[in-house]
Amino acid sequence: MTPAERLDATFAALADPTRRAILARLASGAASVSELAEPFAMSQPAISKHLKVLERAGLIVSGRDAQRRPRKLDAAPLAEAAGWIERYREIWEANYQRLDALLDEMKRTGAGKKRKTKE
Amino acid sequence: MTPAERLDATFAALADPTRRAILARLASGAASVSELAEPFAMSQPAISKHLKVLERAGLIVSGRDAQRRPRKLDAAPLAEAAGWIERYREIWEANYQRLDALLDEMKRTGAGKKRKTKE
Repeated sequence: MTPAERLDATFAALADPTRRAILARLASGAASVSELAEPFAMSQPAISKHLKVLERAGLIVSGRDAQRRPRKLDAAPLAEAAGWIERYREIWEANYQRLDALLDEMKRTGAGKKRKTKE
Repeated sequence: MTPAERLDATFAALADPTRRAILARLASGAASVSELAEPFAMSQPAISKHLKVLERAGLIVSGRDAQRRPRKLDAAPLAEAAGWIERYREIWEANYQRLDALLDEMKRTGAGKKRKTKE
């Protein structure tokens, strides 16, 4: 996969609450498919489908135990995704600063009705 | 939209190279639909479809100029997405440290054939 294809696969895998919850579960340790299925009102085939999407993105790998085949988190694709998003940090932080300045100005001139909570 | 639905929409919007390129373009300033379509070998309707996905995720907003309707980046959803991914930073950094330690060990014992570039 090219870096762009890896980002496509990672972001697509993250665009689902069940898959994000599976990753959150695996962050605290490896788990078998039935253990992963447990907290969800979902059939094992439905969970397996989600696991396949996560595996294709390289976000999970299967352990060596042939019987249980425990799934493990591989966070490396998340590091790449974070690297892409981080380029925009300057922009969102500048926006927050502008908002802060605006709230300060409103407070100073008495135009705001509420005090800002963050000082 | 709930926070989970916002994450779904943001990650789905980011799972496409054209949409990521549109956001990169808008990071350097507002642009009209035809300006956005220019660098891509794509019809304006195809670009409009991508813009709709980005708009639904709140990643772009339409400017006030009724004629040009320039699109602007709104990085706030990216801040939320970064917040979700950041929870896993400890995990990927621990992995990199383990890899570093392994490379050090290989160098020390002469098991590695190449020197690591990062000291």
